[in-house]
Amino acid sequence: MSVNYPNGKKTSPKVEKNLKPKALSAANRGMSLEKLINAANEYYKMNNIGLFSKRPTPINIVKADYSKGVRITNAYFEKQSTTDYNGVYKGKYFDFEAKSTKLKTSFPLSNIYDHQIVHLQNVIKHGGFAFFIIDFSSLNEIYVINASFIIDCFNKKERMSIPYLDIKENGVLIKLGINPHLPFLDGVNSIFDLA
Amino acid sequence: MSVNYPNGKKTSPKVEKNLKPKALSAANRGMSLEKLINAANEYYKMNNIGLFSKRPTPINIVKADYSKGVRITNAYFEKQSTTDYNGVYKGKYFDFEAKSTKLKTSFPLSNIYDHQIVHLQNVIKHGGFAFFIIDFSSLNEIYVINASFIIDCFNKKERMSIPYLDIKENGVLIKLGINPHLPFLDGVNSIFDLA
Repeated sequence: MSVNYPNGKKTSPKVEKNLKPKALSAANRGMSLEKLINAANEYYKMNNIGLFSKRPTPINIVKADYSKGVRITNAYFEKQSTTDYNGVYKGKYFDFEAKSTKLKTSFPLSNIYDHQIVHLQNVIKHGGFAFFIIDFSSLNEIYVINASFIIDCFNKKERMSIPYLDIKENGVLIKLGINPHLPFLDGVNSIFDLA
Repeated sequence: MSVNYPNGKKTSPKVEKNLKPKALSAANRGMSLEKLINAANEYYKMNNIGLFSKRPTPINIVKADYSKGVRITNAYFEKQSTTDYNGVYKGKYFDFEAKSTKLKTSFPLSNIYDHQIVHLQNVIKHGGFAFFIIDFSSLNEIYVINASFIIDCFNKKERMSIPYLDIKENGVLIKLGINPHLPFLDGVNSIFDLA
């Protein structure tokens, strides 16, 4: 990972608080969705299957000290202008975004930014493959779904969220394994017919 | 760009000092190599030609203040674990690194890190296209060159640098234009026969 947080603290200002005891979610087993994906990417790289990387979180520097090299003394995180992940697999360009929700019946579209939709549309236009990894953490179910489906839902704007059942029907549930724990390429192969 | 430096200061600890008056280099016209590439990427995106992005510079956070959102109070830049740029063009995955040298007769291989070579080898292994943009700033000449050539030179380790003439012979000199100012895809089309 590119950004190392001190004391292992979660730093996202958007961390949802959940004080209820968690059941079987991946998070509960000590791995956030991001960690699961990073671990899978590492496995795919080490085993020459595919090469994906997480874009570092961009920061905006307010103040820096130049007296000894460069020490950043005041800065804050910025939104990624694209998506979090991209890479190359089977000679193709892939781009994807990962999102978690604690809701059980729908995935809120407020989780996705306009510029991410535009970016993914551009990826597809240039012949790349785009998908989402959506984690229903309370259900302990993680889906891979074609970005085209999400883009269509987003552009219709009829609803503020996508029903869980629509994602279940149009996506592929990832069966958790040993190594990698989250073999998301199984879903990618399936939705894009890459077997 | 993802990292905004205060006061427009250059923050890289590796900035070379050059106190001699500069002649015709791109830098002299107020644009660093990074800015030239970012401007070309923006042009290629807006004109639906290709989609490339610069990976934000990763930072290592030593201390952060969580009292109001997240404010980073002590951090420093880390080396990119991959290369600076990647993207999709003509349905293919592209990955590249840009380097400048003030030398006139050779390009020092110390500019390139081992892990970048490994990353580019992986890109090629998975069917992606990899190249370097090399700026001989004192000569005002910018070349696009197949990463395979640089990787071979790097792995031989016979020399600490690649002679300028070898780069001139094996790369493609980019003819600067109006828009984009650095049409590096002309070189990419040529070295990979993508016309």
